[in-house]
Amino acid sequence: MPCTIEIYEKPQLNNPVLIEGLPGIGFVANIAALHLINELKAKRFAEIVSSSFQDFAATTETGGARSPISELYYCKSKDDNRDLIIWYGNTQALTTFGQYELVGKVLDIAQEFGCRFMISIGGYKKDEVTPIPAIYSAATDQKTIKEALDLGTKVMVGHIFGIAGLLIGLGRLRNLNGFAVLVDTLGMYPDVKAARYALAIISKYLGLNVDLSRLDVTADRIKIELEAFGLIKDVAEEKKREKQQMRWFI
Amino acid sequence: MPCTIEIYEKPQLNNPVLIEGLPGIGFVANIAALHLINELKAKRFAEIVSSSFQDFAATTETGGARSPISELYYCKSKDDNRDLIIWYGNTQALTTFGQYELVGKVLDIAQEFGCRFMISIGGYKKDEVTPIPAIYSAATDQKTIKEALDLGTKVMVGHIFGIAGLLIGLGRLRNLNGFAVLVDTLGMYPDVKAARYALAIISKYLGLNVDLSRLDVTADRIKIELEAFGLIKDVAEEKKREKQQMRWFI
Amino acid sequence: MPCTIEIYEKPQLNNPVLIEGLPGIGFVANIAALHLINELKAKRFAEIVSSSFQDFAATTETGGARSPISELYYCKSKDDNRDLIIWYGNTQALTTFGQYELVGKVLDIAQEFGCRFMISIGGYKKDEVTPIPAIYSAATDQKTIKEALDLGTKVMVGHIFGIAGLLIGLGRLRNLNGFAVLVDTLGMYPDVKAARYALAIISKYLGLNVDLSRLDVTADRIKIELEAFGLIKDVAEEKKREKQQMRWFI
Amino acid sequence: MPCTIEIYEKPQLNNPVLIEGLPGIGFVANIAALHLINELKAKRFAEIVSSSFQDFAATTETGGARSPISELYYCKSKDDNRDLIIWYGNTQALTTFGQYELVGKVLDIAQEFGCRFMISIGGYKKDEVTPIPAIYSAATDQKTIKEALDLGTKVMVGHIFGIAGLLIGLGRLRNLNGFAVLVDTLGMYPDVKAARYALAIISKYLGLNVDLSRLDVTADRIKIELEAFGLIKDVAEEKKREKQQMRWFI
Repeated sequence: MPCTIEIYEKPQLNNPVLIEGLPGIGFVANIAALHLINELKAKRFAEIVSSSFQDFAATTETGGARSPISELYYCKSKDDNRDLIIWYGNTQALTTFGQYELVGKVLDIAQEFGCRFMISIGGYKKDEVTPIPAIYSAATDQKTIKEALDLGTKVMVGHIFGIAGLLIGLGRLRNLNGFAVLVDTLGMYPDVKAARYALAIISKYLGLNVDLSRLDVTADRIKIELEAFGLIKDVAEEKKREKQQMRWFI
Repeated sequence: MPCTIEIYEKPQLNNPVLIEGLPGIGFVANIAALHLINELKAKRFAEIVSSSFQDFAATTETGGARSPISELYYCKSKDDNRDLIIWYGNTQALTTFGQYELVGKVLDIAQEFGCRFMISIGGYKKDEVTPIPAIYSAATDQKTIKEALDLGTKVMVGHIFGIAGLLIGLGRLRNLNGFAVLVDTLGMYPDVKAARYALAIISKYLGLNVDLSRLDVTADRIKIELEAFGLIKDVAEEKKREKQQMRWFI
Repeated sequence: MPCTIEIYEKPQLNNPVLIEGLPGIGFVANIAALHLINELKAKRFAEIVSSSFQDFAATTETGGARSPISELYYCKSKDDNRDLIIWYGNTQALTTFGQYELVGKVLDIAQEFGCRFMISIGGYKKDEVTPIPAIYSAATDQKTIKEALDLGTKVMVGHIFGIAGLLIGLGRLRNLNGFAVLVDTLGMYPDVKAARYALAIISKYLGLNVDLSRLDVTADRIKIELEAFGLIKDVAEEKKREKQQMRWFI
Repeated sequence: MPCTIEIYEKPQLNNPVLIEGLPGIGFVANIAALHLINELKAKRFAEIVSSSFQDFAATTETGGARSPISELYYCKSKDDNRDLIIWYGNTQALTTFGQYELVGKVLDIAQEFGCRFMISIGGYKKDEVTPIPAIYSAATDQKTIKEALDLGTKVMVGHIFGIAGLLIGLGRLRNLNGFAVLVDTLGMYPDVKAARYALAIISKYLGLNVDLSRLDVTADRIKIELEAFGLIKDVAEEKKREKQQMRWFI
């Protein structure tokens, strides 16, 4: 079972845009995606579990046990805008192999529901961030990068690591268009401010009207979720956790 | 051959409960599962070998050679209780990929025999343990966690590493219910006392009448088995062993 | 999706020779292959993406996002020479597993188009290189090694690492013939001079008439490409980059 | 292509015994197997390449390029003895996953040709070896261990790492019988003396009449082969080689 997919519902979607929101630098994407899900009352229609996720269960304060997972939500537009597919989750895959596979499966599903355009979100780690953080973009094609730059972004220089980069790169090879939005962040997480700027860009692009007043509430929920999944810790602690995974061996 | 499964017998089981008992912290699950197998005269009906197990043979004192393996036993209830499927083995998988695959295969088999409920067992490593060790649980759903807490367990806080956590998390995604029982342990192995408490909780939940007087005998057998498989050693020694695996390379 | 292959066009090729030109030591192969593509106006007919490539997108100076990729080009001979299939790309695979798979897929495609002969190119890292660098070869069979030695190469002693070696070795097992050309290089990259010598050998062998006057232009383009993909850095920096890949984890 | 198998010929074999002889500690198995192949004029009938082998080509002194490979030879008995399948190669797999897969494939083939019994050979690394080295065995079953002990072997205590152990363990799970022969060795390679003792045991068991006078010649050939494949070096040098594999990245 490299990747197990369960699709609950097969919604009819109108030219949907895939928005990626997995945990990453500053958790910018994660906050933005969850906020869209909450505010737009997006509905979960698919779950994906990969054997490249971590092998543990996280617990909730009420005794629940939850696995690392990716989820897809859809949201039908109330106006004449395009529908959305929002990709939310509590982890990325542990290996590059797993990352490719995960992106491949999500693109398979998105394309099945008619998706031809994707937006990935990320934080761009900086040692210092100006009060108004810089926002960067990279795109699959010249028309899209022009649109992204017109939104006030700058050209991204360097690598876009992880799912945010992989999605755009692999989508391009499937002839999808799209762009990545990367917001300067100290990597302090969850970086609500960076998420706010990412959401502003995306809303402007898609003509969405998203209330940002409850963004702090979303960020607090993300924080609880991320702490449960052990994602809010530095790399050193991450190493320590890996050793703990060895604990069954002791 | 990522996972090779051999099913010897296809027993008719009555709403069976899957009990997980692989080696882990304090070997609590391993002792408990073997004791159930011995006392309930459970019958082996399936063997699973994974290419994510270690690549060696362990030897017995009489010159036997045995591989790392997972085994499934069944036990039909003498009363009107539910039947059991007991998952026993001498290793977990070496990679997260292997862990997911192993759990997936075992759930496949268990579901094939009608299983809808699972109990995983583990040790919860503590630096100090009170004379009566604390017992924790986490469950797939609210009804089950309530039942588990009513047995005298506390809500588990933190991660449940390895198979014990993965089984509950992945089972939940397949709409199975169940809970994990985690008993405080110093990680001194085999921790007979912790296994005793785990068995008490499980017996109470399932209405089993299991004689615990020979638990020390079980623990001694586990110890011999684990020593043969090199599981009773600390992480530093584990590393040394890995180097030895390189020995064919000299 | 271990390997995703897209074949755009199915050219009719005349007994084509596969020329391998992936990034490697001194980027000798990479420069030589790109130069052949440019000068012979070779046409891209297939793309291969492997989940064993790195999981990021590289950006271009105009905001484009590109994935690690392998590409196959063909070039029909204007004379009565054999046609060419040129294997170009911006990465090798990260794992030996991925390397085998990548070579396997490329050989599958090449054989589908009638290829029975292959040439791989590489740099042979030396601490010092004479003004006229030594050129080495190793071949699948006695006839071919004789031909390669007649071109002025010496017998290669030692291992041929990575794709350059794997292609010849695995091709031989498929009963293809061919040889590897390895040119002494300090590993300073891109090593235009070494690429020039490799191209001279290959052109002589295949009767190609390739203008080398613009080789520096090719090398500059390779350099930009390689910098974008982070390949021009030493191993220490490579390690640093790996840590950065962990950045989504913070 | 996790494992590519080519079977050249489908010999009719009489109850054949599989003899494993891959490179390992002291190269005891490797020398013994090659000597049997030479002396008994065994014929190669199958080749196996695994993507878990190393990704390079080794060169020969005449400019040949060869891949890491496993080969199966058969030898029909001139007397009324059982036929042999001899498993020879120049490497083991790099990962436990690859080791399982390789053993699985070889057992598949051996069973296809009627094999029900297997003998694996290994060195048992000691810091000191007596003039007449001790020989150990472990077996799949009580009858076979008794036979092995009757040959003058002692009960093996501890793990049998790598293919030698895995073959016996996994064969047992397929209901094959067999035993491992492990000879004390300093790990100085190739250890001709240890190979001699291993061959003596095997010849005695199988009633073979094998001339050992040219064993030194065999060992010299193994040495050349192993040096070409970089197997004769210590672990520290092995690490250095791994770094070299990274050289294409420089």
